[in-house]
Amino acid sequence: MSGNTFGKLFSVTTFGESHGLAIGGVVDGCPPGLELNEEDLQGDLDRRKPGTSKYTTARREDDEVKILSGVFEGKTTGASIGLLINNIDQRSQDYSNIKDSFRPGHADYTYQQKFGIRDYRGGGRSSARETAVRVAAGGIAKKYLQQLFGIEIRGYISQIGPVVIDKVDHNVTNTNPFFCPDKDKIAALDQYIRDLKKEGNSIGARVCVSATNVPVGLGEPVFDRLDADIAHAMMGINAVKGVEVGDGFDVVTQKGTDHRDEISPKGFYTNHAGGVLGGISTGQEVLVQLALKPTSSISISGKTVDINGNAAGIITKGRHDPCVGIRAVPIAEAMLALVLMDHLLRHRAQNSQVHSITPVIPAQRP
Amino acid sequence: MSGNTFGKLFSVTTFGESHGLAIGGVVDGCPPGLELNEEDLQGDLDRRKPGTSKYTTARREDDEVKILSGVFEGKTTGASIGLLINNIDQRSQDYSNIKDSFRPGHADYTYQQKFGIRDYRGGGRSSARETAVRVAAGGIAKKYLQQLFGIEIRGYISQIGPVVIDKVDHNVTNTNPFFCPDKDKIAALDQYIRDLKKEGNSIGARVCVSATNVPVGLGEPVFDRLDADIAHAMMGINAVKGVEVGDGFDVVTQKGTDHRDEISPKGFYTNHAGGVLGGISTGQEVLVQLALKPTSSISISGKTVDINGNAAGIITKGRHDPCVGIRAVPIAEAMLALVLMDHLLRHRAQNSQVHSITPVIPAQRP
Amino acid sequence: MSGNTFGKLFSVTTFGESHGLAIGGVVDGCPPGLELNEEDLQGDLDRRKPGTSKYTTARREDDEVKILSGVFEGKTTGASIGLLINNIDQRSQDYSNIKDSFRPGHADYTYQQKFGIRDYRGGGRSSARETAVRVAAGGIAKKYLQQLFGIEIRGYISQIGPVVIDKVDHNVTNTNPFFCPDKDKIAALDQYIRDLKKEGNSIGARVCVSATNVPVGLGEPVFDRLDADIAHAMMGINAVKGVEVGDGFDVVTQKGTDHRDEISPKGFYTNHAGGVLGGISTGQEVLVQLALKPTSSISISGKTVDINGNAAGIITKGRHDPCVGIRAVPIAEAMLALVLMDHLLRHRAQNSQVHSITPVIPAQRP
Amino acid sequence: MSGNTFGKLFSVTTFGESHGLAIGGVVDGCPPGLELNEEDLQGDLDRRKPGTSKYTTARREDDEVKILSGVFEGKTTGASIGLLINNIDQRSQDYSNIKDSFRPGHADYTYQQKFGIRDYRGGGRSSARETAVRVAAGGIAKKYLQQLFGIEIRGYISQIGPVVIDKVDHNVTNTNPFFCPDKDKIAALDQYIRDLKKEGNSIGARVCVSATNVPVGLGEPVFDRLDADIAHAMMGINAVKGVEVGDGFDVVTQKGTDHRDEISPKGFYTNHAGGVLGGISTGQEVLVQLALKPTSSISISGKTVDINGNAAGIITKGRHDPCVGIRAVPIAEAMLALVLMDHLLRHRAQNSQVHSITPVIPAQRP
Repeated sequence: MSGNTFGKLFSVTTFGESHGLAIGGVVDGCPPGLELNEEDLQGDLDRRKPGTSKYTTARREDDEVKILSGVFEGKTTGASIGLLINNIDQRSQDYSNIKDSFRPGHADYTYQQKFGIRDYRGGGRSSARETAVRVAAGGIAKKYLQQLFGIEIRGYISQIGPVVIDKVDHNVTNTNPFFCPDKDKIAALDQYIRDLKKEGNSIGARVCVSATNVPVGLGEPVFDRLDADIAHAMMGINAVKGVEVGDGFDVVTQKGTDHRDEISPKGFYTNHAGGVLGGISTGQEVLVQLALKPTSSISISGKTVDINGNAAGIITKGRHDPCVGIRAVPIAEAMLALVLMDHLLRHRAQNSQVHSITPVIPAQRP
Repeated sequence: MSGNTFGKLFSVTTFGESHGLAIGGVVDGCPPGLELNEEDLQGDLDRRKPGTSKYTTARREDDEVKILSGVFEGKTTGASIGLLINNIDQRSQDYSNIKDSFRPGHADYTYQQKFGIRDYRGGGRSSARETAVRVAAGGIAKKYLQQLFGIEIRGYISQIGPVVIDKVDHNVTNTNPFFCPDKDKIAALDQYIRDLKKEGNSIGARVCVSATNVPVGLGEPVFDRLDADIAHAMMGINAVKGVEVGDGFDVVTQKGTDHRDEISPKGFYTNHAGGVLGGISTGQEVLVQLALKPTSSISISGKTVDINGNAAGIITKGRHDPCVGIRAVPIAEAMLALVLMDHLLRHRAQNSQVHSITPVIPAQRP
Repeated sequence: MSGNTFGKLFSVTTFGESHGLAIGGVVDGCPPGLELNEEDLQGDLDRRKPGTSKYTTARREDDEVKILSGVFEGKTTGASIGLLINNIDQRSQDYSNIKDSFRPGHADYTYQQKFGIRDYRGGGRSSARETAVRVAAGGIAKKYLQQLFGIEIRGYISQIGPVVIDKVDHNVTNTNPFFCPDKDKIAALDQYIRDLKKEGNSIGARVCVSATNVPVGLGEPVFDRLDADIAHAMMGINAVKGVEVGDGFDVVTQKGTDHRDEISPKGFYTNHAGGVLGGISTGQEVLVQLALKPTSSISISGKTVDINGNAAGIITKGRHDPCVGIRAVPIAEAMLALVLMDHLLRHRAQNSQVHSITPVIPAQRP
Repeated sequence: MSGNTFGKLFSVTTFGESHGLAIGGVVDGCPPGLELNEEDLQGDLDRRKPGTSKYTTARREDDEVKILSGVFEGKTTGASIGLLINNIDQRSQDYSNIKDSFRPGHADYTYQQKFGIRDYRGGGRSSARETAVRVAAGGIAKKYLQQLFGIEIRGYISQIGPVVIDKVDHNVTNTNPFFCPDKDKIAALDQYIRDLKKEGNSIGARVCVSATNVPVGLGEPVFDRLDADIAHAMMGINAVKGVEVGDGFDVVTQKGTDHRDEISPKGFYTNHAGGVLGGISTGQEVLVQLALKPTSSISISGKTVDINGNAAGIITKGRHDPCVGIRAVPIAEAMLALVLMDHLLRHRAQNSQVHSITPVIPAQRP
């Protein structure tokens, strides 16, 4: 299993299993001189952390990140940044039920077949616990992008099962455990998730994540397009099954006159493209949507086989998020930050003028 | 513009502009001993080629590929494979209308801002012409996968605007210019595209691409997941705005009991996951869907600005596909082949047992 | 500072400064199923560790490595392996003399100019302390190579200043603090280093490292040759100024008839090539030599400038190895192991037959 | 055989065999706006070309390079640059003697064992013919470095067998077929090579290559050091067996007081380091030396085995350079240019201030 590194110039390499001693990673390529401390990263880690509300899993994961290197006297030095998050509660529980059986919807079967060995405790490497490191690494990127370019990255839940959010108020998002940006839908979500928990079932979700103040010109044509790298980043988040940029699948029924974003001297009239044309940022808001499958760990028994291929039934005990999509919000933000940061550095490598080219038109039409 | 290489172990690096002397590329990492000649690649190039029917662009691009290296006495040697496709018709037309103005929906504006210079002839590097090289490179991967593993990769159109295809007969797909797998819908598509051309407009499309006989175990957990790399590959195809694996965005309203694919000793009961769990192939059919935006080049005038930011109107002359999604079918197949090939080699690097581990359950439930 | 990752398929990414909280790294790409524990790595760490004898620095660095992930029930799982070595003695000493001045021969000046900021404590990221992580990572590769292929990697000192070692007995190497393979030269080295310490000066060294039982066929033609990657690995070790493979610089005065290794059905007659032809291993012993410059930290005052460009004098206080070359022996072994391991996996990716092709001739002529 | 790409941000990927249709490559990452045409590259190609004098091989290789993409109206566009050099004289000669036997000192044996198949015509992929593409790609880097930074890269022969060059006059180097910078040694070299040809034998050589006006700060600490990447580049040139930076192997007998380059407000007093400290450029001249083995193709019969392991004798017919080291001069220059270019872009990615940091001391002491 190589493939634990994300990013070409600003990269993060992660390690760690759900129930090992610790998880962590190395962030490589951070420019020197950025003021950085652990508190800069802890906020998003706390947003991702389970157990923060009654709606998400009650497992305790004190996601306290330590910066082990790369920062000196409060500033990044240009050296690689070591990140460590200890697993405080990794004592072995009773895993006899999943040790020899494959939980449907989980990676148990594929890991066993690929590697011939599997750390079954809490999903091992396939656990979403690993995403805490992505959130910490993304936090560094977020800070840099914010400080140097005023780039703001914001995620929120736009749908959970039948409950569709229409109104987006970024001031609301972080006031509720659902990352719901519409205060009028919080009660409905609350009720829906409550019922689901009683039922012992789980539900899918749609997450939106966007970035404003992105400079024009980020992204490399052909393979390493900004949108292609975003798709890679997002589809790599546990449970994601679909990714859209801009209008996404709605384009299937759009005509050319519907979709193309016309331009005026004051800026683009519309943003169907989602801020990316030909794989390169337009300066408009970058708009991304994800579909996340329902949590596979549910307390309704499912049919499966054991390690010898014999039929078995399985119930996933323990408290699990009925909607993994919720906690994906800070993860998606982190991944978008990592992609933008990487492309910012890549762009700067070839062009000394990231700032000096004045866009022909304003980024956003007033 | 670095970023012209796709793949880590089986890689293709491309070059070339729409109206330059030639396009081409280098395929690196092909195992030795594969029988290969130009005819193996020409078939898919002809499927992608414009001008094959009245429905696609009438420009003549004799996409004749030459293999310049890496093959000796009919077999690959393990050396890098040079591919060359001459542009036979690259005389400069009149580009005065697009030289100084940005066509809405095109990469004109972003290229100009990123690079400060732009080969405006036919879209230059941003033209879909470059995808011919991907198709040729994908052809090599396709042949290897087919010969060694019996992997079959098949794409088709599943929707064009309002015309939705439900029935899939792979024997029908290549008998019509729409890559439509449903013979009862060909007439409707024909009529729809005719009307659209009269109107001077264009339309989006949905493409499906799948692979059967994929071994269990391809894909690397965490970042370089099989599905994440597929998303990267597909979102990197010109005009793609959305990618789904398995049930895709339908999962948003699915419950855990709906989505999880239960398992019996005879195989998985269902394939909502689309053949990937935890980023690793399950042995089931890999199922991918793409959304392609409508062609931006249409003959209905659009508002834009010129290079100095002044308001301008623009009509894209010339004959253009009213639905770029159609030609994306062989491109998507090629990209899926490239991803699978790369992951096959990556898997083999770490595990000598690609074949030797007997899957616990059959790949497909009978 | 990106560039903290070594290797393509079997890679190590390191972090950490001399006087930070900890150093560590991530090993990615280790095949599953290898028995591994911390003791497997500690032996080489202890060999590299300063303070083991009166001849090397007396600083105490309890290089105790922890494996944080990637190993389950005593075996590697295929997941990335997190390595951590705490810095137990990182309390700040008095660095006022080097904080604002550049020690000649050190990286102080170049770091300050490159990054505009510098962790001056003990050399920060430029300290050889970082190599402990390479030794730990190399230990994993060593074990794999030894277990699966019987590959033995051995390093030793072949020259320190005027003292040239001619006789090589691998059983002697690890019995003395100089990694000297010739028992008749130990006393001379001892006397030479003693005198040097009195003088307050330091000396260069030559290190040999070799690998036996390397399979034929490792290395990729053209850029990623086995010898080119070895050169990259070795020149990347602190203080190395020269690298040779096989006869090295002696080839300058050799004729074709002197150098070419003739072949008989019983094997190669000679090994001037050092086990690599055309960038690919021949099956013979891989032979590498390094030149290491004298320690830059000496107690004889040197001319320099301070951070403002004013003339200054500097003495490096503290106890430092008079010959950094000595401790480079286990580092060079580790780097050779990492290169061979990476190429073994790369070779396996393209060729399923690492073992199955019987070499036409025996690896070593009897 | 993956591994045909060199460079991370400014990369070249090559293809082609000695007797195939063509050789070529793709240069990716060239910044936009550089004036470039084929004549900029042809000069160095002609210097590398065999047949230019009676001292090098008489084979005719009209190394005429075509730029197929990435340049528009005389300037680079930021798109990848396709390079093509046709093999004009690739008709098959009689290769019966080398088809089934392994020439000692050549890659015949290792290619056959690695790949199980081998393009034996003229050495196939292992032929030095491939280096023409490196020279062309390096020419692009050379031009950029020269135009933007005034960096001058110069190579020359410093020794051929017993003939040692002491005096270096860069104005002399390109006036003679040996790239000898000392006009007083040209006659001796001429006589030596003549005698060697009569004898049917070959000889090794030492090549120096240097770069002036390199900005302070290029190179990434730890693995991707400037010197480590130079070593990788140089050891990857056909026939190279040793690489030195600065004093190289002379450091083995140097004391700390001999080696460390002391600093004054007017610059470094000396340059034993060869322009690199801690893997990062100091601003001084970058000094590199290579050892090249004698040509393996000689007309004196050598012992070998055939493909079945039976004893055989072999004479390499045809006219071959008696000293391959000579033609390595422009190749080494090209590789140094590629390394510096790549590191310039990498440095720029992390630091916007390549030019803005004023070095504390002048690059070169007056």
